[in-house]
Amino acid sequence: MSIEITRLVAGQADFDARLDALLAWESVSDKQVNQIVDEVIARVRAEGDAALVEYTNRFDRMRASHMTELEMGQSRLLAALENLPADQRLALETAATRIAAYHERQKSESWRYTEADGTVLGQQVTPMDRVGIYVPGGKAAYPSSVLMNAIPAKVAGVQEIIMVVPTPDGVVNELVLAAAALAGVDRVFTLGGAQAVAALAYGTETVPRVDKIVGPGNIFVATAKRAVFGAVGIDMIAGPSEILIICDGQTDPDWIAMDLFSQAEHDEDAQSILICPDADYIDQVQASIEKLLPTMERETIIRTSLKNRAILIEVADLQAAAALSNRIAPEHLELSVADPEALLPSIRHAGAIFMGRYTAESLGDYCAGPNHVLPTSGTARFSSPLGVYDFQKRSSLIMFSAEGASEMGKVASVLARGESLTAHARSAEYRILPD
Amino acid sequence: MSIEITRLVAGQADFDARLDALLAWESVSDKQVNQIVDEVIARVRAEGDAALVEYTNRFDRMRASHMTELEMGQSRLLAALENLPADQRLALETAATRIAAYHERQKSESWRYTEADGTVLGQQVTPMDRVGIYVPGGKAAYPSSVLMNAIPAKVAGVQEIIMVVPTPDGVVNELVLAAAALAGVDRVFTLGGAQAVAALAYGTETVPRVDKIVGPGNIFVATAKRAVFGAVGIDMIAGPSEILIICDGQTDPDWIAMDLFSQAEHDEDAQSILICPDADYIDQVQASIEKLLPTMERETIIRTSLKNRAILIEVADLQAAAALSNRIAPEHLELSVADPEALLPSIRHAGAIFMGRYTAESLGDYCAGPNHVLPTSGTARFSSPLGVYDFQKRSSLIMFSAEGASEMGKVASVLARGESLTAHARSAEYRILPD
Repeated sequence: MSIEITRLVAGQADFDARLDALLAWESVSDKQVNQIVDEVIARVRAEGDAALVEYTNRFDRMRASHMTELEMGQSRLLAALENLPADQRLALETAATRIAAYHERQKSESWRYTEADGTVLGQQVTPMDRVGIYVPGGKAAYPSSVLMNAIPAKVAGVQEIIMVVPTPDGVVNELVLAAAALAGVDRVFTLGGAQAVAALAYGTETVPRVDKIVGPGNIFVATAKRAVFGAVGIDMIAGPSEILIICDGQTDPDWIAMDLFSQAEHDEDAQSILICPDADYIDQVQASIEKLLPTMERETIIRTSLKNRAILIEVADLQAAAALSNRIAPEHLELSVADPEALLPSIRHAGAIFMGRYTAESLGDYCAGPNHVLPTSGTARFSSPLGVYDFQKRSSLIMFSAEGASEMGKVASVLARGESLTAHARSAEYRILPD
Repeated sequence: MSIEITRLVAGQADFDARLDALLAWESVSDKQVNQIVDEVIARVRAEGDAALVEYTNRFDRMRASHMTELEMGQSRLLAALENLPADQRLALETAATRIAAYHERQKSESWRYTEADGTVLGQQVTPMDRVGIYVPGGKAAYPSSVLMNAIPAKVAGVQEIIMVVPTPDGVVNELVLAAAALAGVDRVFTLGGAQAVAALAYGTETVPRVDKIVGPGNIFVATAKRAVFGAVGIDMIAGPSEILIICDGQTDPDWIAMDLFSQAEHDEDAQSILICPDADYIDQVQASIEKLLPTMERETIIRTSLKNRAILIEVADLQAAAALSNRIAPEHLELSVADPEALLPSIRHAGAIFMGRYTAESLGDYCAGPNHVLPTSGTARFSSPLGVYDFQKRSSLIMFSAEGASEMGKVASVLARGESLTAHARSAEYRILPD
């Protein structure tokens, strides 16, 4: 069964309009979702554990009578780790070690400097006290995501990491628990949905309030995170995953086809884009897609995703490819070209850049070291991969010498009076030394 | 007229409950506000300039017939700067120079490292292309805020800074325009409210779409920012301003009273808190408040703010004061003590820390150098002052050598198969070298 994939030539008459239509994505929380989420949050705030138990029994078909039944102890996590097959355990440990090593480089340090009159200015960097990690249950339960969310928090120095993971019908993912043990998660509650987000944001008798909530989830989770933003920190609200491959036409076309599949297999809304200056090569990749697609375990999902959202784009040259990529600001960008270093300075916006033919995106998804939680849907224009910096915060430091306060008091006084804030002015003027 | 200010003793029976009640703050966008904002955003997206002109004429009582009339050219900004009184110009320039010098230290640089097998990992740091700054019009128009929002973006290397500032009834604030000229703002539109936020987030024929919107505003602006979050980046949604002063009882009580006033004069919801181990000293500060309050220009606002939200708290010692401050996570924290360095390691959460008796908060508000846009309402638990880092973003860099890709391909294959993502696994396996 042949597959139709959108093919465009940059510069053709309707190129911009067709590209924009294919890129368009907006996560819409409809009124009903908003209403349910608002109610769940209000009840968890008002009734605490009792509401958590009731919602979990209802939505996840559990039979808990008390919150204590919805917590998993460290011994349960360790058992999951101990019972892993040796190859999985080794792979998970290798990934965790590399992720930690990379993220260590992201740590910000406090700094200060002293001016001539003795005034000290600086910035104090401290970790958050406690963070919450949302891990989806069911079909999209990814142990790699546990590592990617928990390890940066741990490296930042966060004292307590709380994980929530729903176990619909009581089904537990052993790999997820093993990853939690490995990443140093402190407490695990088998909660999901808006009720889990509300519990982390406001705290209950049993679930402690956290300072920030990270991790992906369905529309109820995303809507709840948006609602509690401000009471706690949140990470970005992620859209469907995307890959953009810039290829010079010299990579094995099977490799490129499979790299496109690796994105498309996530879900029907995932987006795979190839940009190439060589029309014949695009034909070859299409042939590889036709050949390989019937061999894929997740063929149906891949087929739908490619049909609805994939784009094969012919451009004039690699510089035009880079310019187009900047406009799209992709989550994952593969530079499958002979000299990726030469192209790199032209790349302004991308979540992660995979350089050279050997650097398949999937290596970065699991074990290269950098984070796989990346800005989607063009948000790489203004946001960054999840990192240690997401679990640290800064306090400005100001310590004026008597002389410095006197000099700056004069400046502040003029500016404060210009804004009619005379208490500000007088507070500054008290610190002006007599001549 | 004597003033009643809440006075608490830490540890007294009802202390926690009373403190929580006084700290409680939640910005609530009611249904009507949400509905208006949704409609404004939808119309600006659909109709562009025409909707902007119509809303501006209606809400700001203007008579524009075309968007070009709602843009101010560079010459207008420069004229405002040229016409400033000399003392104001010098003060503004001094502040701008110090703000730029401090923020230069916040710049993140790209980094990379090479592993034994030649694999390169790193992080590329780039500025956003274009950002929008919202500046309130009318009574709360602060030139210092223009400097504090624009200069970090400029230091980050943002190519284009767009400012929006409403001019209700055509009233223009010359100091605000002068500050825009000084800070290097590129374009200024006389727009405000949700319509200005929508224009920046989605772009119109005349207003270019930006990557991030920063700056304070009223409930319509805050609601609109929350609504467009995701399409563009936003800064924190700020609550009322707060100060927390830890004093050892040795600072001139008039100074402390005036520092409390400087916060209270912002608006009726602003919060001023004093924590001190010396009950007699708290009496002296209360006496200073009574004495100085009738002399204040903004007495009515200060009186309301102090009556409703101020708290004077007696604690056992300075360590207890620090612990209490961490629980509150104040926006502004004054350590008005003999040895602020000794107390600093105990401070975990605060937007800005003003150390020593000479360091009045108002010096930091204007010209110390650090930013005055700070996390309010306890959000210093998880967020930071506005800074250069808010206008930079990061891209992960991964470049595997053939050997590195082969080794890591084996690890990724195991993990991907553990997650049933076989396209990921096969993509990685293609890069495994034959033995």
